[in-house]
Amino acid sequence: MLYSLQLIEKEILMKNIALLTDFGYQDEYVGVMKGVILGVSPDARIIDLCHSIKPQSIQQAALLLQRSYQFFPKETIFCCVVDPEVGTSRKPLAIRAGDWLFVGPDNGLFSLVIADAKASGTLLDLIVLDQSKYWLDKIGRSFHGRDIFAPVSAHLANGVTLPLLGSSTIDYKELDLPNPQQVENGWEGTILHIDHFGNCSTNLTSEILKTVTNSRLIINDHQIDRLTQTFGEANPGESIMMLDSSDHLSICIVNGNAQETFNLKLGDCVRLIEKN
Amino acid sequence: MLYSLQLIEKEILMKNIALLTDFGYQDEYVGVMKGVILGVSPDARIIDLCHSIKPQSIQQAALLLQRSYQFFPKETIFCCVVDPEVGTSRKPLAIRAGDWLFVGPDNGLFSLVIADAKASGTLLDLIVLDQSKYWLDKIGRSFHGRDIFAPVSAHLANGVTLPLLGSSTIDYKELDLPNPQQVENGWEGTILHIDHFGNCSTNLTSEILKTVTNSRLIINDHQIDRLTQTFGEANPGESIMMLDSSDHLSICIVNGNAQETFNLKLGDCVRLIEKN
Amino acid sequence: MLYSLQLIEKEILMKNIALLTDFGYQDEYVGVMKGVILGVSPDARIIDLCHSIKPQSIQQAALLLQRSYQFFPKETIFCCVVDPEVGTSRKPLAIRAGDWLFVGPDNGLFSLVIADAKASGTLLDLIVLDQSKYWLDKIGRSFHGRDIFAPVSAHLANGVTLPLLGSSTIDYKELDLPNPQQVENGWEGTILHIDHFGNCSTNLTSEILKTVTNSRLIINDHQIDRLTQTFGEANPGESIMMLDSSDHLSICIVNGNAQETFNLKLGDCVRLIEKN
Repeated sequence: MLYSLQLIEKEILMKNIALLTDFGYQDEYVGVMKGVILGVSPDARIIDLCHSIKPQSIQQAALLLQRSYQFFPKETIFCCVVDPEVGTSRKPLAIRAGDWLFVGPDNGLFSLVIADAKASGTLLDLIVLDQSKYWLDKIGRSFHGRDIFAPVSAHLANGVTLPLLGSSTIDYKELDLPNPQQVENGWEGTILHIDHFGNCSTNLTSEILKTVTNSRLIINDHQIDRLTQTFGEANPGESIMMLDSSDHLSICIVNGNAQETFNLKLGDCVRLIEKN
Repeated sequence: MLYSLQLIEKEILMKNIALLTDFGYQDEYVGVMKGVILGVSPDARIIDLCHSIKPQSIQQAALLLQRSYQFFPKETIFCCVVDPEVGTSRKPLAIRAGDWLFVGPDNGLFSLVIADAKASGTLLDLIVLDQSKYWLDKIGRSFHGRDIFAPVSAHLANGVTLPLLGSSTIDYKELDLPNPQQVENGWEGTILHIDHFGNCSTNLTSEILKTVTNSRLIINDHQIDRLTQTFGEANPGESIMMLDSSDHLSICIVNGNAQETFNLKLGDCVRLIEKN
Repeated sequence: MLYSLQLIEKEILMKNIALLTDFGYQDEYVGVMKGVILGVSPDARIIDLCHSIKPQSIQQAALLLQRSYQFFPKETIFCCVVDPEVGTSRKPLAIRAGDWLFVGPDNGLFSLVIADAKASGTLLDLIVLDQSKYWLDKIGRSFHGRDIFAPVSAHLANGVTLPLLGSSTIDYKELDLPNPQQVENGWEGTILHIDHFGNCSTNLTSEILKTVTNSRLIINDHQIDRLTQTFGEANPGESIMMLDSSDHLSICIVNGNAQETFNLKLGDCVRLIEKN
């Protein structure tokens, strides 16, 4: 019976750890982080969120995390490692923001999640990791994903509470993201994300789209007048604009690749104007 | 004791969900589907079958699924999302075919699995998903993998039965695959699959190979006379034909890349003839 | 109560199986191996160590395995498939080396792990797999990862002991790796690994670095004088040498790509000399 109860408690404590890194799939880095996590927390469930963040692109990671975390179960621990300043004085953080937990470097990666928590007035708790007993015994200077963030995430999964891991703080690094600008006749936005299909997602949302009656999207020398709700309602090869699955206005080609066709890249300007 | 019994039931119900998509590894799409699944079915075990289907290539996904599903445990749920018509009237399906379950769009993706079930006279049950209480609360128009197919798969893993998910049907979209053609002196086939090693797999099977006594394979301007049973029995760099691990005649170069060397692509014709 | 005890035993027996292959992410090969494993051992936990080994590169796999295995929990089973000689007489192996188990072809892949075990005087046990009752029923000639190594790993996870799987041996294939050579004024080394960030790791370790007082690294026509402990202490774009997370001297560019910038490749020579 004693064993049984331990098992039941384990079951109740079992936690999800989602990994987000710029490590790619070429090396052992992600696999080794998983090995470290399972060494500390054998029952943790590890989920790959994404490992294809462009090397050192904190902005891309922050945006991807913001689009994703609310689809995960409450109490999921997001272990995020895009860490160009590893080994310097940049702070290692653990964060509770609402129903989710986040572990990783303080470099802007978490600022959109923190902004969400502030906007919704939900629980927000930031901890600077300084209790090295929750880290690997030997800490290197170039792979804190393995040495600090993986074991800390695993201890959180085991039920260690945030205050045990370090000291409370209110400071954190903010990300400097471009905002849509109102211009004559409409809005100017920026391409913030390009996905595997070549769909180019902007910082223009449905709120902004509503302010334009007959919308035309202008990118480089091209204009797109067709606004659809689905890919299927336009013809293969047709250029469309569409609100994507995270409510951002996207530039797409049905069954094609808008990025390649229009030669688009991250940071490119788009204009959403009234068709006359 | 009550808790113990609940645990035991959970154990018995634990199901495998295998994911097959064309989402690639660049974005959060696959990770978010996993988050949704674990929100509905915390004990489901998620397995990545493949996420590198060429964008919108229903044929490639259908062939890969057919080569794979019988190696998975019975009752595995295959959640498959190659869905160029997402948001249109194409039907969302859940299927039992023999000992396995399949969830995804009705666009031909499942027609080879259904053909297998028909050929073997095993259980076959098709359901059009129309019970939205098993979907996410807010359904978008461009990501039914997240909004419909992931949660439906998770409910199946939880023990929800097919009839609860929608209405029975016998209609489904068939895939139009090229068949081997008998020609003078042999057979004409088609390259249907090229793998990561550059091995090019055709629609010619061992059955067809048996009908040719001294086989010669002709592709573009090249001919291959060496038929082996293993890579190791030929020399590095040698061109061979070989029955691959799913019983299809393949064009290979030992420790090399046949696709690149012979400049081959999907859909290319091959001829298997008698050497004179 | 009986059920409860079975559950507890299952829990205790639950094992990790880490996969290392050159199968890439394009095909169904890895997914199918997972299906086979779960068919034999439904409770095994499968971890992707890496599937991006360069096709047929036994050396790359052996080095990656050596850098990784000690970060995994004890009793983890490493199922490794880089197997250019599949189908020939090369032996299939299962190995205990210290606290870990290894399954795969006898082609040098495990020789560094075996050398570690010999060096530390720990337990070492080599078994040639010849008991086909632990394999799939139908064994092909080109995919022993699926037909032999996956099911054998899963039986190990179920608690089948090594001696049941085959016959004891002391022979195994050794890998021929270049060693650092002492030269006038310093050492000559070799680039053995290039990671996703373009960092180029050599066979020169901290032991060797200590013998050079004012170190200068020479590669092709370039020289690097800056030795740092972290990326962060140099400026973006600066070329540095640094001991990487597995104690090998690496050539790096801060927030850049040394491989591309200096046009480096595996096997390239580097010289570590005294700056005068």
